[in-house]
Amino acid sequence: MFDLTGKHVCYVADCGGIALETSKVLMTKNIAKLAILQSTENPQAIAQLQSIKPSTQIFFWTYDVTMAREEMKKYFDEVMVQMDYIDVLINGATLCDENNIDATINTNLTGMMNTVATVLPYMDRKMGGSGGLIVNVTSVIGLDPSPVFCAYSASKFGVIGFTRSLADPLYYSQNGVAVMAVCCGPTRVFVDRKLKAFLEYGQSFADRLRRAPCQSTSVCGQNIVNAIERSENGQIWIADKGGLELVKLHWYWHMADQFVHYMQSNDEEDQD
Amino acid sequence: MFDLTGKHVCYVADCGGIALETSKVLMTKNIAKLAILQSTENPQAIAQLQSIKPSTQIFFWTYDVTMAREEMKKYFDEVMVQMDYIDVLINGATLCDENNIDATINTNLTGMMNTVATVLPYMDRKMGGSGGLIVNVTSVIGLDPSPVFCAYSASKFGVIGFTRSLADPLYYSQNGVAVMAVCCGPTRVFVDRKLKAFLEYGQSFADRLRRAPCQSTSVCGQNIVNAIERSENGQIWIADKGGLELVKLHWYWHMADQFVHYMQSNDEEDQD
Repeated sequence: MFDLTGKHVCYVADCGGIALETSKVLMTKNIAKLAILQSTENPQAIAQLQSIKPSTQIFFWTYDVTMAREEMKKYFDEVMVQMDYIDVLINGATLCDENNIDATINTNLTGMMNTVATVLPYMDRKMGGSGGLIVNVTSVIGLDPSPVFCAYSASKFGVIGFTRSLADPLYYSQNGVAVMAVCCGPTRVFVDRKLKAFLEYGQSFADRLRRAPCQSTSVCGQNIVNAIERSENGQIWIADKGGLELVKLHWYWHMADQFVHYMQSNDEEDQD
Repeated sequence: MFDLTGKHVCYVADCGGIALETSKVLMTKNIAKLAILQSTENPQAIAQLQSIKPSTQIFFWTYDVTMAREEMKKYFDEVMVQMDYIDVLINGATLCDENNIDATINTNLTGMMNTVATVLPYMDRKMGGSGGLIVNVTSVIGLDPSPVFCAYSASKFGVIGFTRSLADPLYYSQNGVAVMAVCCGPTRVFVDRKLKAFLEYGQSFADRLRRAPCQSTSVCGQNIVNAIERSENGQIWIADKGGLELVKLHWYWHMADQFVHYMQSNDEEDQD
């Protein structure tokens, strides 16, 4: 169980749709500070959030997840002046543009990883931080392939690979930063959009999605917060059909016995 | 079974290590043309390959997988003047630099996807091509997470997501281009290198890899070609421990019944 009371939360996402609904629920959890880093200003959404809990301090900045790492470092130095520290980093910036592979990958995957790499030192217990939680809000097509959104699916598979890798006890036991992901199923705000399939052959399938029956953004947002509160390091959750399900993670590769034996041995001579 | 005899093969990779060994085996298969697109010139490797089979035409060009899509299109227009057509596209360009997330993702994932998107129209049965095969040479840490190489693992998870998505019958039944991946286990050329872990906490584990017992590049190259010859659309293979294993793919997400029903229905009124 992760108690959100008094926490400093940094949410990277445009504050509409799922992110807005998730933020609304966060505002009911007695968090101390909420920073929203979004690609464009959205003062109405901020006002709406503030009205839910006037005593929680809300900060908002425009943020481009595709900025260079050096810029990102300077950016978060500024953010930390207001935030003091970050307990929870939520990555929710997302783009589905199959005609622009670069932008889709840079936003969903590279930008998220650069953000995590930039924020981690502030959270790291061994670097003066207090540990914390990183939450990647992603998609069920990061777990299973998509017949229409090949680039988007690739980016979201990447998010799962990164989440699972960074959650390794090798890191968590040292830095105290837990990492988890919540994979949203088809949600109203997503399917309502006109989206292009990777190849034209998938377009009628993509068009059909627009009227597909699916969960509301508010229920999905509620379940993202539920997952955060129930989280343990390395967990992946599915928020779909109005519910929440813990994913039983599958492993494919069976290492050779001699490889396992070698890597687990503590023979210092083997190390440079 | 995929018969390589007489085929026009385009291999995107630096022609050393696994790619060189794989190319040597390809040269014994009576292929008609082999194009090697590499980041730097390597005339010795080309001469070595040519000596295996003088009657196979070898072309080589320098190629940067991170080039912009418009440039890539012009580049392959030139390639096609020599190649006439491409039956098999092998994507093997790879980078593992945890200190440079952008370069790792751009090379392993974005560059591969842009290359595929550029080459597909030449292969597409409905666009005047003859169909064919796309092979992504990737890593077992694209299937399972890595305790040390978080960015590399993310990029390789992305490759698997893309491969599985593009292999959907929705596309294959139309364009006749099969898509598969071969995930290499730890191989001599990889573990010999000094590689950085994503966070310093993983470095001793990364250093230990350098002397890990693992398969040779030549056996791995042989098994990549074996996988190509045995391939069916959508298959993922593991080439590790000197062997070859077909992966039984796992699905995580159970779509809501009403969602499945809606997407499978042929009610044209539902479409715009």
